[in-house]
Amino acid sequence: MVQIGGGRIVRGGTRSWWGWGNVEDAVTGAERDALTRRVAQLLPGADLTVHRPPPVEAFGVGASRVRAPRALAPLVSDGVRDRLAHSHGQAFRDVVGALLGRLPHVPDLVVRPTSEAEVVQVLDWCAGARVAVVPFGGGSSVVGGVEPRVGGDWRGTVSLDLTAMNRVLDVDRTSRAALVQAGVLGPGLEGQLRPHGLTLRFFPQSFEFSTLGGWLATRAGGHFATGPTHVDDLTESLRVVTPSGAVESRRLPASGAGPSPDRLFLGSEGALGVITQAWVRLQDRPRHRAGASVGFARYEDGVEAVRALAQSGLNPANCRLLDPMEALLNAGSPTSVLVLGFESADHPVTAWAERALEICRDHGGTPAEPLRVADDAGERPGGGTAADTWRSSFLRMPYQRDALAAQGMIVETFETACTWDRFDAVRAAVDDAARDAMRRAGVTGVVTCRFTHLYPDGPAPYFGVYAAGTWGRTVEQWDEIKAAVSDALIGAGATVTHHHAVGRDHRPWYDRQRPELFAAALRAVKGTLDPAGILNPGVLVDAPPDAAGPEPAGEYR
Amino acid sequence: MVQIGGGRIVRGGTRSWWGWGNVEDAVTGAERDALTRRVAQLLPGADLTVHRPPPVEAFGVGASRVRAPRALAPLVSDGVRDRLAHSHGQAFRDVVGALLGRLPHVPDLVVRPTSEAEVVQVLDWCAGARVAVVPFGGGSSVVGGVEPRVGGDWRGTVSLDLTAMNRVLDVDRTSRAALVQAGVLGPGLEGQLRPHGLTLRFFPQSFEFSTLGGWLATRAGGHFATGPTHVDDLTESLRVVTPSGAVESRRLPASGAGPSPDRLFLGSEGALGVITQAWVRLQDRPRHRAGASVGFARYEDGVEAVRALAQSGLNPANCRLLDPMEALLNAGSPTSVLVLGFESADHPVTAWAERALEICRDHGGTPAEPLRVADDAGERPGGGTAADTWRSSFLRMPYQRDALAAQGMIVETFETACTWDRFDAVRAAVDDAARDAMRRAGVTGVVTCRFTHLYPDGPAPYFGVYAAGTWGRTVEQWDEIKAAVSDALIGAGATVTHHHAVGRDHRPWYDRQRPELFAAALRAVKGTLDPAGILNPGVLVDAPPDAAGPEPAGEYR
Repeated sequence: MVQIGGGRIVRGGTRSWWGWGNVEDAVTGAERDALTRRVAQLLPGADLTVHRPPPVEAFGVGASRVRAPRALAPLVSDGVRDRLAHSHGQAFRDVVGALLGRLPHVPDLVVRPTSEAEVVQVLDWCAGARVAVVPFGGGSSVVGGVEPRVGGDWRGTVSLDLTAMNRVLDVDRTSRAALVQAGVLGPGLEGQLRPHGLTLRFFPQSFEFSTLGGWLATRAGGHFATGPTHVDDLTESLRVVTPSGAVESRRLPASGAGPSPDRLFLGSEGALGVITQAWVRLQDRPRHRAGASVGFARYEDGVEAVRALAQSGLNPANCRLLDPMEALLNAGSPTSVLVLGFESADHPVTAWAERALEICRDHGGTPAEPLRVADDAGERPGGGTAADTWRSSFLRMPYQRDALAAQGMIVETFETACTWDRFDAVRAAVDDAARDAMRRAGVTGVVTCRFTHLYPDGPAPYFGVYAAGTWGRTVEQWDEIKAAVSDALIGAGATVTHHHAVGRDHRPWYDRQRPELFAAALRAVKGTLDPAGILNPGVLVDAPPDAAGPEPAGEYR
Repeated sequence: MVQIGGGRIVRGGTRSWWGWGNVEDAVTGAERDALTRRVAQLLPGADLTVHRPPPVEAFGVGASRVRAPRALAPLVSDGVRDRLAHSHGQAFRDVVGALLGRLPHVPDLVVRPTSEAEVVQVLDWCAGARVAVVPFGGGSSVVGGVEPRVGGDWRGTVSLDLTAMNRVLDVDRTSRAALVQAGVLGPGLEGQLRPHGLTLRFFPQSFEFSTLGGWLATRAGGHFATGPTHVDDLTESLRVVTPSGAVESRRLPASGAGPSPDRLFLGSEGALGVITQAWVRLQDRPRHRAGASVGFARYEDGVEAVRALAQSGLNPANCRLLDPMEALLNAGSPTSVLVLGFESADHPVTAWAERALEICRDHGGTPAEPLRVADDAGERPGGGTAADTWRSSFLRMPYQRDALAAQGMIVETFETACTWDRFDAVRAAVDDAARDAMRRAGVTGVVTCRFTHLYPDGPAPYFGVYAAGTWGRTVEQWDEIKAAVSDALIGAGATVTHHHAVGRDHRPWYDRQRPELFAAALRAVKGTLDPAGILNPGVLVDAPPDAAGPEPAGEYR
């Protein structure tokens, strides 16, 4: 994302029904002017006319096709704005769809249960009434995971909004764990944990507008660049409501008793059950920090340095290598930059950070500054440091994405993971595929790459595509690029997603990546837990044969 | 285990058909005398007469009920000694059963495939011929996982011994990973990795006599006390042959694409498929070490210190807290001892270890010696250090267990995991249950506890029971103790196993621990991957309805 300063983030604003976050935080005025100037510099000649979303009345949303039983009435909303807000996620294609007045999969009802008993009531009604249910957390899916694009001959669709179930129910200070309702948004969760001196430290870019349940259902990636990268690692136990009953795993730090029940539901994307609560592993708030940025004249040296770091056992909390284009756009640097950070609640991390810098120097890196060390830094994560600025910018990016999308830009990201031996080939394949597709689509743009997460055996590269599109056709143009890069990822031995999940958008590539017999196993599980196939149809597996009617080919895409 | 010095470990000896390891390494002579004296001191009045296993002819093993197709003949063994050696694992109850001439579940054939194609041929034949297949690695199961106690009306049973598939097929030095056939034993694996400067660093107590495939199928626990404790964490991808076909996951450092296929097969104990090969994550051989032992006058202080260590992010490689009885038996110390070690291939670990000692001191610990530091320690893990001595003793323990079992002792261990807030109650419940059961069984003995693995949210306690039993009745006496402690674990919120798997022995408690709908999901998966139910019947789930006939109640136990 093209980054313009920190920007302001207003808490408790009015949620936008069509785009990211709060209406009050939209990019306007001087911020938009500066952004426009930057883009005009980067892509001269781009038509950056600002387009506005149509009024909600223009979407031609019909009356709801189904009515909920009287007992559920207090939980139900059938207002057009609410239904439109639940008809899409926050992918580029969603936002531009809204701007163009194209939101074809609007749920009939939005239902907001306040308890697990109410979730059960909703599922019971829907299973009996042949109504498809799409679990909905913060609605930040970027893969078509929450839109009611359900195929089949359902009588209606319900968006099951879980954000009313947003409480921390229990805190175990000794084990550093909490029992949390799945519908809590990031800030609400951290706010409830703060009085206990604890934190989940799970800060995806969607932090303010995504829920714990959404993170769990999508195997989201969080704050830590190494170690506990995915929310999977932070999960002590889950409680999941399925149409066949509830499943609750035992709170355990680890177990060897058969295949892990939790791992079946982590990544199940609402297709096997509705996660209602979870015990999650917490941390003490960090008091010690050390960090630096390191320049690399040659990107390949940076990659080798980062591989050595990932294999060193030093476990940096932050270790983001920006390729030259990403560095140019996001750090104003003409060459590759590594942003490196260590943190601890227990001990100064200088020894760790110094060894990391030594590894960087051994690989041709040049620290941009002396090591920044902060001990007893107080409660606010990264208070006052460059990391804090970066964090604000990071949270600002989706707003800027919306602004650019409304100016005819193609602005989207995708992420993957691969083993180190394949990384060069994966990056080259993605780069080639994106450039070819942009050429075919008749657009001019750039491709960027940074590492968001790292493992001893490989990186998780995060790609950005920024191109001047043709207003009215940018979704189709992006779809062509996205298909090409997804083919490249699958062909080069990478995964179609590291932490954005599969949803409906990644299904064709997920189906190629996943072992076919594992798909059969998942179908068997779905048939057991959700025999009527009401849960998020089209996600993960196709509806079982006894579910709501045949599926027109290609409908899910 | 009562530990008497290091003892000698002979490589490439003759495998015992009834007990642990190699015949040449059995406890004899002066070692046995010393061991007997120690036990007589600990449990005065115990009858320590040495009993010998009967000759194999005494077991009355009948002719094989089935014959393999001609094409498989070169792989098949029907010799009585071989079949007896494959009729049991290495639990106390197995070894004593053999000594008493009671091995009731002898496979009809032992089949040793040398390729995946041959595994497929065996499964095809067995599925058609209604023959149950028990995958067999090193045969070190301590939970009845490999004995053909299959129930039903099978025409016969095959022990599928995978140890002929024992090669490292590919090494990716860059990503530090290797493709390895599942039948390789620990030393064979490390021996093939050594020329590459790499190591899996997975050293369960069974290391010499267990296989990679066995570790994967049972979610075994390895070398590291913190961090990558289970083999799950070292698994990059799996290839599994099921009766319905092969399943191969993609080599990835991480992925968010749906529920993890690997996690379905990790811990599947041969009931869902036969793991034939895996890409595993390796490490450079460590060059830097630091360690110390720390005494705690009060055990509770040691527990608090270890909790602080587990939550510190320091990630010690070794962090074994021995309770006073364990310390007395295994370290000659009258009070609790913590054995602490750090290691790295990248950097000196003194800073880590010093902070760990500081934490120990803050919690009332007294280091027994100055920090032992070894840099550039060369290739041999822990060469010449106390850790090395401990390692030899650790590998010696099962031999000594056999010696004591043959002298009428009850000598067995079991392990669990629980959250920190429950640990005191779990330990007390286990202790009470074991003592009550020993009293009921009319035996005198002791219960010990050490931590083998640690997590920020809880420990993995490992219990030992050492009692003077009644020869001829020690299995029944142990079964009573085991049932009581298993009830205690489940009742107190712990897991029935942290790294010994479920097998047949833990099934009743696993069934109480596992969410019932997850069991239903596993049955659905089993029905898909193994429709005839031939794979390790009785393990994990009951046979599906269309498998080989009804199961007499209680038969699996």
